[in-house]
Amino acid sequence: MVKRSHFLKVPVEPFTIDPELKADEILAKMERISFQGRSLGIAHRVWQKMLSDEVTIFMGMAGALSAGGLRMVVAYLIEHRFIDCLVSTGANLYHDLHETRGRRHYLGASHVNDAALAEDRIDRVYDTYASEEEFCDNDVWIGDFVATLDQRPYTSREFLSLLGGHLWRETGQDGILTAAYRAAVPIFCPAIADSSIGMGLSQGRHKRPGSGHIDIIGDIVESANLVIRRPRTASVVLGGGTPKNFINQASVQAEFFSPAVGGHKYALQIVTDVPHFGGASGSTLEEAQSWGKLAADAAQVTVHADATIALPMLATALARSSCQLARERKRPAFDPGQPEMLIDGRPVSHDAFEETT
Amino acid sequence: MVKRSHFLKVPVEPFTIDPELKADEILAKMERISFQGRSLGIAHRVWQKMLSDEVTIFMGMAGALSAGGLRMVVAYLIEHRFIDCLVSTGANLYHDLHETRGRRHYLGASHVNDAALAEDRIDRVYDTYASEEEFCDNDVWIGDFVATLDQRPYTSREFLSLLGGHLWRETGQDGILTAAYRAAVPIFCPAIADSSIGMGLSQGRHKRPGSGHIDIIGDIVESANLVIRRPRTASVVLGGGTPKNFINQASVQAEFFSPAVGGHKYALQIVTDVPHFGGASGSTLEEAQSWGKLAADAAQVTVHADATIALPMLATALARSSCQLARERKRPAFDPGQPEMLIDGRPVSHDAFEETT
Amino acid sequence: MVKRSHFLKVPVEPFTIDPELKADEILAKMERISFQGRSLGIAHRVWQKMLSDEVTIFMGMAGALSAGGLRMVVAYLIEHRFIDCLVSTGANLYHDLHETRGRRHYLGASHVNDAALAEDRIDRVYDTYASEEEFCDNDVWIGDFVATLDQRPYTSREFLSLLGGHLWRETGQDGILTAAYRAAVPIFCPAIADSSIGMGLSQGRHKRPGSGHIDIIGDIVESANLVIRRPRTASVVLGGGTPKNFINQASVQAEFFSPAVGGHKYALQIVTDVPHFGGASGSTLEEAQSWGKLAADAAQVTVHADATIALPMLATALARSSCQLARERKRPAFDPGQPEMLIDGRPVSHDAFEETT
Amino acid sequence: MVKRSHFLKVPVEPFTIDPELKADEILAKMERISFQGRSLGIAHRVWQKMLSDEVTIFMGMAGALSAGGLRMVVAYLIEHRFIDCLVSTGANLYHDLHETRGRRHYLGASHVNDAALAEDRIDRVYDTYASEEEFCDNDVWIGDFVATLDQRPYTSREFLSLLGGHLWRETGQDGILTAAYRAAVPIFCPAIADSSIGMGLSQGRHKRPGSGHIDIIGDIVESANLVIRRPRTASVVLGGGTPKNFINQASVQAEFFSPAVGGHKYALQIVTDVPHFGGASGSTLEEAQSWGKLAADAAQVTVHADATIALPMLATALARSSCQLARERKRPAFDPGQPEMLIDGRPVSHDAFEETT
Repeated sequence: MVKRSHFLKVPVEPFTIDPELKADEILAKMERISFQGRSLGIAHRVWQKMLSDEVTIFMGMAGALSAGGLRMVVAYLIEHRFIDCLVSTGANLYHDLHETRGRRHYLGASHVNDAALAEDRIDRVYDTYASEEEFCDNDVWIGDFVATLDQRPYTSREFLSLLGGHLWRETGQDGILTAAYRAAVPIFCPAIADSSIGMGLSQGRHKRPGSGHIDIIGDIVESANLVIRRPRTASVVLGGGTPKNFINQASVQAEFFSPAVGGHKYALQIVTDVPHFGGASGSTLEEAQSWGKLAADAAQVTVHADATIALPMLATALARSSCQLARERKRPAFDPGQPEMLIDGRPVSHDAFEETT
Repeated sequence: MVKRSHFLKVPVEPFTIDPELKADEILAKMERISFQGRSLGIAHRVWQKMLSDEVTIFMGMAGALSAGGLRMVVAYLIEHRFIDCLVSTGANLYHDLHETRGRRHYLGASHVNDAALAEDRIDRVYDTYASEEEFCDNDVWIGDFVATLDQRPYTSREFLSLLGGHLWRETGQDGILTAAYRAAVPIFCPAIADSSIGMGLSQGRHKRPGSGHIDIIGDIVESANLVIRRPRTASVVLGGGTPKNFINQASVQAEFFSPAVGGHKYALQIVTDVPHFGGASGSTLEEAQSWGKLAADAAQVTVHADATIALPMLATALARSSCQLARERKRPAFDPGQPEMLIDGRPVSHDAFEETT
Repeated sequence: MVKRSHFLKVPVEPFTIDPELKADEILAKMERISFQGRSLGIAHRVWQKMLSDEVTIFMGMAGALSAGGLRMVVAYLIEHRFIDCLVSTGANLYHDLHETRGRRHYLGASHVNDAALAEDRIDRVYDTYASEEEFCDNDVWIGDFVATLDQRPYTSREFLSLLGGHLWRETGQDGILTAAYRAAVPIFCPAIADSSIGMGLSQGRHKRPGSGHIDIIGDIVESANLVIRRPRTASVVLGGGTPKNFINQASVQAEFFSPAVGGHKYALQIVTDVPHFGGASGSTLEEAQSWGKLAADAAQVTVHADATIALPMLATALARSSCQLARERKRPAFDPGQPEMLIDGRPVSHDAFEETT
Repeated sequence: MVKRSHFLKVPVEPFTIDPELKADEILAKMERISFQGRSLGIAHRVWQKMLSDEVTIFMGMAGALSAGGLRMVVAYLIEHRFIDCLVSTGANLYHDLHETRGRRHYLGASHVNDAALAEDRIDRVYDTYASEEEFCDNDVWIGDFVATLDQRPYTSREFLSLLGGHLWRETGQDGILTAAYRAAVPIFCPAIADSSIGMGLSQGRHKRPGSGHIDIIGDIVESANLVIRRPRTASVVLGGGTPKNFINQASVQAEFFSPAVGGHKYALQIVTDVPHFGGASGSTLEEAQSWGKLAADAAQVTVHADATIALPMLATALARSSCQLARERKRPAFDPGQPEMLIDGRPVSHDAFEETT
């Protein structure tokens, strides 16, 4: 009788068809198949572990997810506190604001005469269209709001919280910005200058000299202090980009000043980029361990998939499997609408790191 | 009042969370978002159209889908006649046979010491392991079966039907080969020489000189005749590779001899390759139109996703939305276990094309 | 005699081997083959057209190109004015500074025990290593420099010009920052908060309260004014990311205020991302036309390749084919080291857009 | 003084611009940068090692490389014996034959009205066009040749050698098939049924019943015997697909019958597929070690790049650096034009494996 290799322990369980399965049940079965199906199944489990533990859950989002129809999924995750802090590109917040203000994005084609679109002043994002005119109206609306603010630097976090509040009072509509405002979840936007939110800010300054100052270095200090205060963290990344790196950077920067910080305990990324070209978006979670961005024993998974497929599945599954976990977990309380954010009632500086020993 | 561009018709409908949704309901909502989520939603609809129309549905499968846990999904699609004819790589049929014979594949890691695996004689497919010893046993089993056959060329279609029958009689277990045998669904394997099925055939010949002849040119003739007989076709492609091209080639070759053939009326592909490197696996369905592989007005969609995510979703959704359609549709009747296959009772040649005018 | 289709005009010319060919000759031959080889050949020609015309050439760089060994190529392009303005991620400038200060990156492996690296405090970027200790020393060095600056907001452009000057005076070594300083080429870094340069700035502030303010909204205004001043532009993009969008945004924003702006006349991108997931990094240049980022009749090309392969080839070819073009072309003169940058001797505001009619 | 980590040994050497560099010099410098540039540099070195050692060099080619302008590069590698045995898809041989017969492929566009192309009977391969009419003429030409052959099975190797001879006698033109014929280099085409070569064979059979039999199982036996005879092998793979697997399979199959076979000593692959979807095309060379396809201590490299960029560079570099190595190396002598191929003068069976002990 041949001795069995210890490598051969848990067999693949072929996926069998049951028409009545719900999302969480489908993902549970996917854990036992291979390749990215398995990764998606594991992602569900890793997120559940985050919710069961006492960690601060960061979520990063890059790529045109709001225009692409995922903004209410993100709003749901914020509202039900499946996450604690959002780091986003400006575009996702802008497209969210666009729809919260009652405008729409439109189903389009990916192969189309773009000169004809330009003539009709329609902006295309792969297979999705938007009206440039409506976009300009947003820019003016943001610019007008910016011109009402104090003539001092605002961290992106404070600015976006105020913007969300203004949007909520004006529209009473759900969305990412308004959900974050209402749930007191902070949003950071380190690359805000590279977006239409930034363009709105620049138009505010054009309107009223001295306005429109965003203190993105303050965001660095504050996000690191957030980790120093609650050194056990988790990272959920959709699409890579600046949010992915910013979340990791907060850990690395925090570790400088506080020995209690040891990298994310949990990490989950849904990306389409690959590691072998060296870019940060596609970098592996293993690589993140070399930097101390991720704890050596972290529960982690990378899903190589488009977020427009993976996230609706994953969030629907979590909504069924884990609402109680999300409700009952020990989570941080923020007040993000102040110059100095409060964490669990205590202000946190954006000017100096909180050194611990 | 500004006149609305005709490009802006149907708005994106942000995906909203409902924990109780089933797969078909999730895909229905995905049709109204963007990017590959939308494509997956459309794939569900396109497949339903195939089932509603009187077309012969070809399915191609490449990539390690059987080892990766999708063989029972494919068996389900065959058994319930969501497809009429399978074109597969040899590896998928081999790994199916492996499990039907009671062996397993195993959950593994994608980053692992491969020299240690080699020492334990374990073969790795990304994150999945198998025992080389068990594989060798399959080869012998196939070789023994091959040695019992007549010393004449068999099309891959005839050979695989006989192999499926032998496997069914010996194991009584479900799987792709046995489901196809029992449902009388033909399987073509044009690149059978490039697989362990081919290795088993070669060992059969080694055992018994003169055996193990596969007439893959006969497969070309027969598959084209199949299209000539039933000129309205549909194509479902998982992963590209030789099956994708072989299905298209059948249309192109058939058109030579029959003016009624006009390319697939419906086409759906789930691929991870991209078009811009020029390979056939990643080629667009638009490109297929230039060749006449696809009708100019075909309902078609490409989903850029791993089949291990997309197919469980899609098949579960179809099982709920379309079982009746599959049951009631007008589909061809095959008898694939003969030297000359019967289509709707009439034999079809693998030596000469059926010319029509 | 069959009439020839007008689609069949210029035949593919099979690449033939000549061992003595130089880079520009290889690329000239590649223009006559297919797929991405052809694209790379065309890229050489498009860049030559940029140099022959009177346009402001923006270059964006994202991905770990400096750590990956391309910083002296970029420095060469700056020094010889193959480009006029650089938009970069912070990481590329940081890794450049690291080497200009005499530290190195190291050849490593992409599959390695990252926990062992972490123990040795080595940071990994795919197949490349760096010492974390040396990185910390850079952060302190940047922080010390930041603490010497005035307590007012600096645009990233002004800050980076001053940083380059300081670096040059201290090291006298070539690199991206020092070459840009010496050639008076402005560098924008809209996502500076998402990088180790940003971390250095935050440490400067920690050291000296009130310092380390970067006015990235001022960068938006200024970059748009730069386009308004010289409305004919070209875009060279390496790797996508925030630089790609920021360059396009400058055109879009400028067009608001100046009817003379009509999108880039020339565009060349070397990217590894794909369009079908909807992200900006992989978006096509056709899509950019719908937004007015690119002129409808622009000469443009996308090369799907890793910049570490494509750029050494392309820059070596340009160095041979086009040095005279670069020397003799009409290019803007900048003075980027002032609070208000000078363009051709006249200051340009970062507080208000320059409206034209 | 801090002890230096042993991980930090060889620094990245930034690529510097020298306009006069030739391909081999560019690749030598690329070895010292990162990511895929480094991989391409290493590929040059690995191929040189193959040429310096006494190994049988297999080359696999998949993807539309012939239509895409690389057929004369491959012909060069065959003629100068940089390789000993070619494994190809049928399409690459067909498109080669098309041009050797004096027809051309044409520069086209990747975004085009495919219905208009179809109307002009033009077949598109991404950005490359061909005349369907000329293709049909090839099919007839192949069919006519097939009808002249004996009515017995031919291995693809024998058939392609005879086809190359016929083509050479008729045209006297260079190309892959004719170069292989003249240099007596065998070509295997395991998936010949999935190509226009196969379509030509099927038309030969249609013309003359009983003709057009290809014994692809014989190819398996023979290719394994080839490895058994010369157990030290190397593998160069362009694009994955069936050729990649067939080359590896020959090693695996050979090892069954001969303990001297230990997997390829050298392996080099230029691919665009990625490993994480589980397909064989994108699988890593590490994974190949678990199967014994690759020796544990093999010199190996994967280049993630389009072959239309990488191969012209690599072959031009080899032509300069290694012509003498290729001329002087100990290489096998084949006679591939017989039913039983001769290796170094001794016939090799395609019916039974050559068992050794």
